[in-house]
Amino acid sequence: MRLPTFHDVEAAAARLTGVANRTPVFTSRTADALTGAQVFFKCENFQRVGAFKFRGAYNALSQLSAPQRQRGVIAYSSGNHAQAVALAGQMLGISTTIVMPKDAPSIKIEATRGYGADIVLYDRANEARELIAQRIAAERELEIIPPFNHPDVIAGQGTAAKELIEEVGELNYLFVCVGGGGLISGCAIAANALSPHCKVIGVEPELGDDAMRSFHSKTLQTAPRANETIADGARTLSLGTLTFPLVLKYCHDFVTVSDAALMRTMRFFFERMKIIVEPTGALAAAAVLERKVAIAEHAKIGIIVSGGNAEPEFFSRVLLDRSMST
Amino acid sequence: MRLPTFHDVEAAAARLTGVANRTPVFTSRTADALTGAQVFFKCENFQRVGAFKFRGAYNALSQLSAPQRQRGVIAYSSGNHAQAVALAGQMLGISTTIVMPKDAPSIKIEATRGYGADIVLYDRANEARELIAQRIAAERELEIIPPFNHPDVIAGQGTAAKELIEEVGELNYLFVCVGGGGLISGCAIAANALSPHCKVIGVEPELGDDAMRSFHSKTLQTAPRANETIADGARTLSLGTLTFPLVLKYCHDFVTVSDAALMRTMRFFFERMKIIVEPTGALAAAAVLERKVAIAEHAKIGIIVSGGNAEPEFFSRVLLDRSMST
Repeated sequence: MRLPTFHDVEAAAARLTGVANRTPVFTSRTADALTGAQVFFKCENFQRVGAFKFRGAYNALSQLSAPQRQRGVIAYSSGNHAQAVALAGQMLGISTTIVMPKDAPSIKIEATRGYGADIVLYDRANEARELIAQRIAAERELEIIPPFNHPDVIAGQGTAAKELIEEVGELNYLFVCVGGGGLISGCAIAANALSPHCKVIGVEPELGDDAMRSFHSKTLQTAPRANETIADGARTLSLGTLTFPLVLKYCHDFVTVSDAALMRTMRFFFERMKIIVEPTGALAAAAVLERKVAIAEHAKIGIIVSGGNAEPEFFSRVLLDRSMST
Repeated sequence: MRLPTFHDVEAAAARLTGVANRTPVFTSRTADALTGAQVFFKCENFQRVGAFKFRGAYNALSQLSAPQRQRGVIAYSSGNHAQAVALAGQMLGISTTIVMPKDAPSIKIEATRGYGADIVLYDRANEARELIAQRIAAERELEIIPPFNHPDVIAGQGTAAKELIEEVGELNYLFVCVGGGGLISGCAIAANALSPHCKVIGVEPELGDDAMRSFHSKTLQTAPRANETIADGARTLSLGTLTFPLVLKYCHDFVTVSDAALMRTMRFFFERMKIIVEPTGALAAAAVLERKVAIAEHAKIGIIVSGGNAEPEFFSRVLLDRSMST
């Protein structure tokens, strides 16, 4: 598959106009004071289905041919990509099948079913979701919509950074969370075109630092312990065959943050900014607020707040943990 | 004291430009589907100090004479008004004294002190805060900034509705929470001027229904059990001598909601809109989402989300209570 370009991001933006939310950009006097910089939070927690994933899913589904649309699509995801594909399918009149682990939170299974998706549950211990999805896709002639390694998905996610830079002007830094690299690839393409001097920094959980190691070694690395982090959107084994070259081409550095730092950052968003951010959504902000990168004074920093689908039980843990008080 | 007019709200808006946040107006497809209407949430939880109170406090303090400014001001409040007066004082170079109960959450006491206020603690069981404030004000020649019964405070709060209507156009309904009536008085003045056919509905907690009874009986009533509601911003004994006549003149109806409804509404904001709203801040939305008023289809409804300073411990109770799941 070909690598997407800024032209693809622009085309995606046109498709998403009036369909995706143009999410607000928030600022915080406290964040500015803590960093000595100007910090702009692009709030994709206010995106449809509560996460940036809707951008890529809708962009991919809306480009399918008439016969593909008629046959339907399949996706495998326990999280936001599942809901994003289900909603995009509902909006476009495309039937969707989602492969989800049996032990996924019932609230997420129900939400996905609520968008009209056909849910196939599997046992995480004994089966590989990719294989199940491939088997069903072959049987029913369904189009697979992968969570990140697809040019249309990547181009769709890039519209988040495009909107941010168009709204606040050129940036010195753009911090983006990294799982499979779909969001950062698309955003880096957009930043490179619209703000050529902007440094694009990927942020991973410490337990899933494969992209950082891949970037530095220029060889694709895996993170076998990625499934242990609380940042469930970053529990990916590695970058993909498209996202890895894009990351090498357009990104400037990678850093990691601890799970404790993610919880502190979720608490910061609760206390100071009054918004709900899920653990993965807090990755980029955590790197900035915990000063993982030396930032020049008065720099303009963009942060993608990627999602807000926090589990109530987990969120209450963040609130009740006394060590998290700011 | 004279009753404020729309001219005062306009003058307050000019004073607050570039000083208060012009808070965003959020919409929710789920809220629209639940109500069959178009619902616009004016998000004062994103206001400075996390609540609309900053508007009135700054408007009042900025109009003091030079000698008054030099002597300083005093306010009594356990909540958002305290922080609002303290911050406005800090910004305007006016020294502030805040009378707070000894058992106020330490996080609020510290936040108020953080804005440079001199804190006087009192024992809620044995002393009346108004008397303490009056005594100190007399001794030190300080100006008292009351939490609601003051024309400049009322005019300042009204700028929230002015901004909302200017942004989304005329409304059929405007729902506003009611404690002492400062917010609803100011907002009703603004709605009457900018959207004359808009019905302004006051919303109180069931345990503090004094304004509803006052409105219907046209005689000032008190709510002795108001201090039992979780809506701590509405734990006022009654409307004031200014807010009561304004309510009679400009409001159209009053309804009450239960504490359980407030918790369900906070949960709705968490799950569906990804924002933090404190119990008092959820009053107006609760009346709409729980259908306390028969609303014509496709009506345009404005809701003032008055504040976001939820206590972490209380918020986690909302999240963990299984009966709250939506």
